[in-house]
Amino acid sequence: MADLNAQPLSGDPAARVLVAGASGFTGALAAELVWRHPRLRLVAATSRGDAGTPLARLYPRYRAQIELTELDLDRLEGIDAAIVAYPHGAAAPTVAALRAAGVLVVDLSADFRLRDAATYERWYGEHGAPQLFGAGVYGLTELYRDQLRGAELVATPGCYPTASVLALAPLAERGLLTGVSISAMQGTSGYGRSSDDLVHFSAMTENAFPYKTEGHRHRPEIEQELVALGSPTPVTFVPHLLPLDQGEMATCFARLAEPLDRDALTALYRGRYAGEPFVRVLDRPPNLRAVRETNECHIYVTAEEHGGAVAFAAIDNIWKGASGQGVQNLNLMLGLDETEGLV
Amino acid sequence: MADLNAQPLSGDPAARVLVAGASGFTGALAAELVWRHPRLRLVAATSRGDAGTPLARLYPRYRAQIELTELDLDRLEGIDAAIVAYPHGAAAPTVAALRAAGVLVVDLSADFRLRDAATYERWYGEHGAPQLFGAGVYGLTELYRDQLRGAELVATPGCYPTASVLALAPLAERGLLTGVSISAMQGTSGYGRSSDDLVHFSAMTENAFPYKTEGHRHRPEIEQELVALGSPTPVTFVPHLLPLDQGEMATCFARLAEPLDRDALTALYRGRYAGEPFVRVLDRPPNLRAVRETNECHIYVTAEEHGGAVAFAAIDNIWKGASGQGVQNLNLMLGLDETEGLV
Amino acid sequence: MADLNAQPLSGDPAARVLVAGASGFTGALAAELVWRHPRLRLVAATSRGDAGTPLARLYPRYRAQIELTELDLDRLEGIDAAIVAYPHGAAAPTVAALRAAGVLVVDLSADFRLRDAATYERWYGEHGAPQLFGAGVYGLTELYRDQLRGAELVATPGCYPTASVLALAPLAERGLLTGVSISAMQGTSGYGRSSDDLVHFSAMTENAFPYKTEGHRHRPEIEQELVALGSPTPVTFVPHLLPLDQGEMATCFARLAEPLDRDALTALYRGRYAGEPFVRVLDRPPNLRAVRETNECHIYVTAEEHGGAVAFAAIDNIWKGASGQGVQNLNLMLGLDETEGLV
Amino acid sequence: MADLNAQPLSGDPAARVLVAGASGFTGALAAELVWRHPRLRLVAATSRGDAGTPLARLYPRYRAQIELTELDLDRLEGIDAAIVAYPHGAAAPTVAALRAAGVLVVDLSADFRLRDAATYERWYGEHGAPQLFGAGVYGLTELYRDQLRGAELVATPGCYPTASVLALAPLAERGLLTGVSISAMQGTSGYGRSSDDLVHFSAMTENAFPYKTEGHRHRPEIEQELVALGSPTPVTFVPHLLPLDQGEMATCFARLAEPLDRDALTALYRGRYAGEPFVRVLDRPPNLRAVRETNECHIYVTAEEHGGAVAFAAIDNIWKGASGQGVQNLNLMLGLDETEGLV
Repeated sequence: MADLNAQPLSGDPAARVLVAGASGFTGALAAELVWRHPRLRLVAATSRGDAGTPLARLYPRYRAQIELTELDLDRLEGIDAAIVAYPHGAAAPTVAALRAAGVLVVDLSADFRLRDAATYERWYGEHGAPQLFGAGVYGLTELYRDQLRGAELVATPGCYPTASVLALAPLAERGLLTGVSISAMQGTSGYGRSSDDLVHFSAMTENAFPYKTEGHRHRPEIEQELVALGSPTPVTFVPHLLPLDQGEMATCFARLAEPLDRDALTALYRGRYAGEPFVRVLDRPPNLRAVRETNECHIYVTAEEHGGAVAFAAIDNIWKGASGQGVQNLNLMLGLDETEGLV
Repeated sequence: MADLNAQPLSGDPAARVLVAGASGFTGALAAELVWRHPRLRLVAATSRGDAGTPLARLYPRYRAQIELTELDLDRLEGIDAAIVAYPHGAAAPTVAALRAAGVLVVDLSADFRLRDAATYERWYGEHGAPQLFGAGVYGLTELYRDQLRGAELVATPGCYPTASVLALAPLAERGLLTGVSISAMQGTSGYGRSSDDLVHFSAMTENAFPYKTEGHRHRPEIEQELVALGSPTPVTFVPHLLPLDQGEMATCFARLAEPLDRDALTALYRGRYAGEPFVRVLDRPPNLRAVRETNECHIYVTAEEHGGAVAFAAIDNIWKGASGQGVQNLNLMLGLDETEGLV
Repeated sequence: MADLNAQPLSGDPAARVLVAGASGFTGALAAELVWRHPRLRLVAATSRGDAGTPLARLYPRYRAQIELTELDLDRLEGIDAAIVAYPHGAAAPTVAALRAAGVLVVDLSADFRLRDAATYERWYGEHGAPQLFGAGVYGLTELYRDQLRGAELVATPGCYPTASVLALAPLAERGLLTGVSISAMQGTSGYGRSSDDLVHFSAMTENAFPYKTEGHRHRPEIEQELVALGSPTPVTFVPHLLPLDQGEMATCFARLAEPLDRDALTALYRGRYAGEPFVRVLDRPPNLRAVRETNECHIYVTAEEHGGAVAFAAIDNIWKGASGQGVQNLNLMLGLDETEGLV
Repeated sequence: MADLNAQPLSGDPAARVLVAGASGFTGALAAELVWRHPRLRLVAATSRGDAGTPLARLYPRYRAQIELTELDLDRLEGIDAAIVAYPHGAAAPTVAALRAAGVLVVDLSADFRLRDAATYERWYGEHGAPQLFGAGVYGLTELYRDQLRGAELVATPGCYPTASVLALAPLAERGLLTGVSISAMQGTSGYGRSSDDLVHFSAMTENAFPYKTEGHRHRPEIEQELVALGSPTPVTFVPHLLPLDQGEMATCFARLAEPLDRDALTALYRGRYAGEPFVRVLDRPPNLRAVRETNECHIYVTAEEHGGAVAFAAIDNIWKGASGQGVQNLNLMLGLDETEGLV
């Protein structure tokens, strides 16, 4: 791998980036964000099923001028970094091959997010690269920024954990959380591009529903992070699908070890996120349109009469909830400014 | 008032019904449902602002052939019953006048829902007909059916309490509920017809957001009914507006006095709602399309690993959440079959 | 086949109807309409891919309580009529088998719509039952009502021809049409249930586009009918897909042999459609919401300053544009009132 | 007025721009585009009704950090240019006052688009600044670029004329057009922010309809430009409202003086628009998502069997159809690169 920071090529100081799995919603956005990025160069966007198709044919609103190709793991020379947008389970072997070739990897799948192997196996089955299990840094930037600088493998969090944990972190860090029920809502881009009766326009318009009510894979990820922050607490998590494309809301009902009024909660949140480039603590409830196609997370917190709190976080599920945060982390890995290419 | 049940006119056994406030979403639907009803006759549909306009001009999808007129409280002879679809606070004086003329009244506003006068004043201000406060039967049919038969004034519940209380009643009746957090979602018909930047199509499409996060008027109504059922418990309630027209989901996180597994919960719910014509306990999560333009309430309940339950209820907010339930109650008041005109 | 009209069984005077291809949008609606119909009995709803699945699982908003089964052409005894909702080309052999068994057939495909074999082959390829080609009555009820009474095979028109020809018939019948350009728009139910990137909610929301601009199969069908009505004229036809579920608008720019003002046009149209149970000539432009989930066709016509006319027709593409009209025709075939089960 | 080009202030080479009427959809976008523009500085955004409100409160997705103020025509010193987003008729007096103060003006209203006073009066009534009537350059950039450079008053075309004339210009310039029927479709942002029953989300979702079928103000504007291009021809124009926010499609049925095949048409169009920064001639029909929130116009043209052509143009109605094109023109007026701030 070229040592980007030590010796940029004159005339092309950009890191050379591969996006694997660029035909899906998050992979295509990752390719587009790399394409637009002033310090990154998109050298390949791969897809098994759509090789030979220009990316802009699949996603007419994107500007990246690149044809999808098949991934060739034997020809990685000159690649500095890769963003891998494969399904859970399928990502690990490719990530391992890329790392073996010295390529920095931002993985968008769940394969390197969990720290407990048994939990991984329960929810996802056998791991595809056990030698690397636990080797990734969890890419929730606002929590792990120091470890992300210079990291070589980053596991970008799921969209639901990103919103939920950002909504709860100020409470969890103080050990205040004693119980959480999360009602999360997401647009159909979170369901993936794979066509399905459920997300046919005719089925989804004028509709909304909860799904995976008996256990969503993102719940253990949320619990893992709340424990890491200092509040081991049971989490109830219910996701809903909404009739919109991009956008996600996490409405978090928090039981607290001690009551806090709205002003105290607001002060706690504003203090925690002061200086964060992508997190805004609002003085009114957030909405999805305001964060659409941005890497921002809009947070609002209020107190309940009976002593609890309700915290809301709104993100674009494929930006801050996937590819935007992936690029945010890649910036840190490469020693660039965290916001580069994202504002 | 004609004594409908004792002496129906030969040739017109239908009750003669007035709908007051028929230009709004719920009033217009009430007029339409009366129009279609085989045992009711729509004799007037009133509106101050739209008098002179055919109802079908405002709502082209409705079939009722009637022109909106101004309400004349001096000419109520021959009117058997009225459905009043006025704003909260404005309904009470009209309801009082109708009752004074011997007209049976189904009120769709909040004016007669609460049983505690101080609570009413806190949320809605001074009451417009204090002599009648508390005189209405709360029109959540599945809970108050016996009192509704032959009632003369019925206060139809709000859409959020209808869904939430139906979702929680089987637990509340057993005294099992020790805490509830409700994440409710509703389409823009619930916001009312009054135009507003928020519900302009351009503002609402691809959007969703929580609102009234510091206290929604429907929360005390939910608490009142849970107390009445036997579970005095604090309620946290957060409504969200969704980019769809008709439909409402109440996702209720319930803390329980004793753990129940999914089978026990399902058995409890199926037992409670067996025989109910409009409530279906599903074996999978509900969705809004399935209840749209029906008077049905679809319920699903599941257990959480840590001992709590999550109960879901889906309704059409202007049918079972307002006018459909209003007609359901009017059927009972008139001694008709509860489902008449609604299936 | 039971002779329905001569000797209805006491206790079950209903015709026994099979719906073949009931898992798609139009087939499922056909099954639902038969289910609700007071004089029809749904005895089977078939699907190859979804056999074993209850219809209501695929379409939760439908009420029909029936499990999809595989079609068995060897067991048709007791079946009076069938509605066939197969893809173009695939329908013909099944239709032939049903006819051979004496079953009345309403075909929703294009296989029996065209009267010219060469035109059929150009657009659809080889015909699957050439012995029956031309044997069907074209099921645009308002034009062919007399032939439809007692017909044994009816080819239900495509949704675009239904709207376009109804919009233009009063002009065409008088020989007034000298040229037509049709801009048609349709919701995603017209695209079919077969999942596809194009109709993924994330692709379709906030989108709209023309398609099949180099020739849509429905154009020759429209031309055939205009010729039959007396106005052989070139037709330009452009369909667009809109971000909605059910609904279709045909906006028809007509050049006229002689200028007619708006009053004359309106009088012509009102005269032509007087007494039609499902066609309404409006005094203002139609909209899709007003016809949604109805068998109605709403028409409006106006004059252009330079001598032409613009005629609009709005229908629900899977009701009047397919299954609703199919049942309308089946009513006529069975000697029932044309509107039965549809209002 | 500061002489921007001769003597930029060191440290602030940006032109100082006022946006009048910034609370509406187009005015707010104009303010946002000026805010983001590297060579413009937004010094004021005015609104009578919303003065005192931050722009971002009305439009949370915009980034401009500015509070709306009342326009004070007595304090224009230091203002180089203004974009006026007032209703038709109301703009003229303000434009005149701004011009009298030496301010360059981009007017987004219809007040200076028409060149014939009688036509203006027929469609809009008395003109508010007759001394300036005809003084503006018509701001369809691709047709009037030379006159726009250095112009002092520019009348930005309506959204429908922008799309329609761009779709037809290559034909009109050759004198090929002998008749045009335009079926245009637009999202609800084109209807304006003023709330109205028609654009309530509950009325518009799952709906679409033609409107102003007896004559739309944009038709004389289209005819004026086709004449100016060399093809005086009658135009039939029908607009439709679609259930989406931003986006507009003009589907133009063109009768031609001589037949052209698809290749000849494509060559003509590609030649005409070669080098245009914002016009792309596609090899397949355009769609609205691809141009949303861009200043691009996507065009496709095809031949009809009977000798005519169909030309399609897709734009974002408030970008290329209003404020984006306004900024494009302002760039030319100020001697900047035409694309600055728009890509």
